[in-house]
Amino acid sequence: MAEALESKSPQSQLRALNAALTDGRFVSVRKMLHELPASDVALILESSPTKTRDELWELIDGDFHGDILEELSEDVRNGIISKMVPEKVVDALEEMDTDDLAETLSSLPEEVLQGILESMDAQDRVRAEQAMSYGEETAGFIMNTDTITLRPDVTVDVVLRYLRLKGDLPENTDTFYVVNRTDNLVGLVPVARLLTADPDDTVSEVMDDDPEAIPVNMPDDEVASLFERYNWLSAPVIDDKQRLVGRITIDDVVDIIREDAEHSMMSMAGLDDEEDTFAPVWQSTQRRSVWLAVNLVTALMAAAVSDLFEDTLSEMAVLAILNTIVPSMGGVAGNQTLTLVIRGMALGHVNGSNARWLVSKELAIGLLNGVIWAALIATVIGLWKQDLMLGVVIAFAMMVNLIAAALSGATLPMIMKRLKIDPALAGSVILTTITDVVGIFAFLGTATLLLT
Amino acid sequence: MAEALESKSPQSQLRALNAALTDGRFVSVRKMLHELPASDVALILESSPTKTRDELWELIDGDFHGDILEELSEDVRNGIISKMVPEKVVDALEEMDTDDLAETLSSLPEEVLQGILESMDAQDRVRAEQAMSYGEETAGFIMNTDTITLRPDVTVDVVLRYLRLKGDLPENTDTFYVVNRTDNLVGLVPVARLLTADPDDTVSEVMDDDPEAIPVNMPDDEVASLFERYNWLSAPVIDDKQRLVGRITIDDVVDIIREDAEHSMMSMAGLDDEEDTFAPVWQSTQRRSVWLAVNLVTALMAAAVSDLFEDTLSEMAVLAILNTIVPSMGGVAGNQTLTLVIRGMALGHVNGSNARWLVSKELAIGLLNGVIWAALIATVIGLWKQDLMLGVVIAFAMMVNLIAAALSGATLPMIMKRLKIDPALAGSVILTTITDVVGIFAFLGTATLLLT
Repeated sequence: MAEALESKSPQSQLRALNAALTDGRFVSVRKMLHELPASDVALILESSPTKTRDELWELIDGDFHGDILEELSEDVRNGIISKMVPEKVVDALEEMDTDDLAETLSSLPEEVLQGILESMDAQDRVRAEQAMSYGEETAGFIMNTDTITLRPDVTVDVVLRYLRLKGDLPENTDTFYVVNRTDNLVGLVPVARLLTADPDDTVSEVMDDDPEAIPVNMPDDEVASLFERYNWLSAPVIDDKQRLVGRITIDDVVDIIREDAEHSMMSMAGLDDEEDTFAPVWQSTQRRSVWLAVNLVTALMAAAVSDLFEDTLSEMAVLAILNTIVPSMGGVAGNQTLTLVIRGMALGHVNGSNARWLVSKELAIGLLNGVIWAALIATVIGLWKQDLMLGVVIAFAMMVNLIAAALSGATLPMIMKRLKIDPALAGSVILTTITDVVGIFAFLGTATLLLT
Repeated sequence: MAEALESKSPQSQLRALNAALTDGRFVSVRKMLHELPASDVALILESSPTKTRDELWELIDGDFHGDILEELSEDVRNGIISKMVPEKVVDALEEMDTDDLAETLSSLPEEVLQGILESMDAQDRVRAEQAMSYGEETAGFIMNTDTITLRPDVTVDVVLRYLRLKGDLPENTDTFYVVNRTDNLVGLVPVARLLTADPDDTVSEVMDDDPEAIPVNMPDDEVASLFERYNWLSAPVIDDKQRLVGRITIDDVVDIIREDAEHSMMSMAGLDDEEDTFAPVWQSTQRRSVWLAVNLVTALMAAAVSDLFEDTLSEMAVLAILNTIVPSMGGVAGNQTLTLVIRGMALGHVNGSNARWLVSKELAIGLLNGVIWAALIATVIGLWKQDLMLGVVIAFAMMVNLIAAALSGATLPMIMKRLKIDPALAGSVILTTITDVVGIFAFLGTATLLLT
């Protein structure tokens, strides 16, 4: 009878494995690893520090290497492959589907890739080079070539007999493709349709004869959004001469959807999407330092603005105390707008025809926010520091900065997209620079004019 | 022949629609809307300001309402439904699958929902209440009940004849479910298997007899990660008595995967996932103000820490100028760690067995970062302000704060998860509070001790 998946937790498996590994019970570790599905072993490897990861990998039989490599994230996979002898890598790659082969090979560092290609025999090398021949992040790169094609003029009965003879179908086959003599795609037959069709009908009578197909060079994020939009499970891929070259299945697209959605979050924190949580300390430190360097420059710029008002600051220490409030509120409000616009662009909601409307909307919010928070901060500071004029100054600065924040949060992603810069990566740091500089300038500048 | 999808852009359609709407060419707007697939109309509605959205909705024929509502995001859908008369809503809901019905109804405000339920006839009301009977965000909530079940003892030939008689199969049917007399799930038959099987075999001979099934009360994010992990296209759902109650298909799971991945990014900016980019100004202002209020408290706390050092600040204005650098660097470094750990937890990589290892790794990065950026900032400030001792003070504060940032970035998400608080929502604001307070305290405190 059916077995309910009590969300079989790889966590508990990981704990058991770690205990066995620490005790040196390598035989049972080996046994445990071989009994798990490849995707679970991959998750366990990804959840382990590099040292444990290498030890575990050594214990896994070479026959399983290919399946597990397929499931690993880029960083982790590259780390493991770089430590394997090229011949073993070649063995592991032999069983891979074209799309996984293309992804695995093209993410490798150049010198490792060369070593592997040199260890391949001529036939494998041709297959590998063909898999990599389509640009990364295109439909051709993520497609599989294991399509089942039918001719339009044969009967359903003949097809059924052919399939029975053939036995197993490729994984996730939900559609057969109908092609003419020159391999042009002329129709689709869903698998379920063959079951319900009259055996005497010809393929051309039961097929959908107006198939929509993905051009082989379409960017993969557009492919993903078509799958999402039309709830496809698979789609045919054609070259520029309308010839069928492969198919894309939803399981490959799911990875792209997750990666795209994660990309913005990781980029906004200045992280690489593929960053391995368990990478060695030095590697992680290097990767993250770029972002800290950029931020140091930003922080120094803000300090330089404060520096312009050194006299005012030395006269009134209270300004120094309150100097961080206005920039901080601007940063938060601006980041809200920025995040919303970046997501709206990713979902295809924000575009030329409504951009102006959106900017005015965000500006209106900025104004409204400005009034609300200016009134509030004026009250708080007026009461805390018993200084009405100080309250007025900070209120004015708050208003100016929240409007600047809304304006930059809404327009920055649009400007950057036009300049072909990733808004998620650079947007947040530019925005913070603007809100810091405007906030400090407005606060200390007004204070210098009105209070000294 | 196949038609290559030149990523048919809803943007250009939107522009054409807007032009027609402005010119008052309502008949052509209507025609354009009815020629597009429901998902494209949904995208167009989501990309329009509320006023345009309402005008467009008025022009769409009631027959299409259900299909379009299914595709809309929660906020936009609720806005439209709230303005419709309940009877029209009931008509639109009639054609919906159980999972879409459940989602649509349970996200509605209570009073709107009541109005709709009251307008339904008894049969529809039972169906609606049943759809909503499973907890939101569970397998039961996202499943569909349109399964095709087979008996184990009939032959493949009988099944084929039955299917031919039945004609169309439910959308995305890739598996038939085998149940016994008490509706217990005993096996699975992939659709493609029936094509290649011997017609004289019985169903029990061709089925997978060890099916894995999802318990009806499993949280939907666990369902999504199972689909991702095992590359499933669909999965059966069973109740606590092992009875088949429905099936979940990948297209429903894709939405959950995207929403989960987006959730963290939106939460970290203090936004609601479902926030409608084109909502009215006042509604957006209210929603975002909670986060600004929280941040104001944080900023005031930081100011209160600076306030402790008023004398030092009034003595040395240069400290006021540099006071933002250390907190800012701590915030950025801490947010990197926080984002990485939150993503690691979402992917299931971070758990009890490796948490300690991860915290020590991040601490090591914090230390290393501390040394690097302390040295750098000491040099910059030493040269800029020609004050060696000032360089030493800021270097020390930087070191302390980067270590505090690493420690809180790594531990906060784990602590919050244990307390059942969403780390993405509250993590970032708590972290910034910590890095602000520690940074200011370390900088001004050391300065007070060493420089005055």
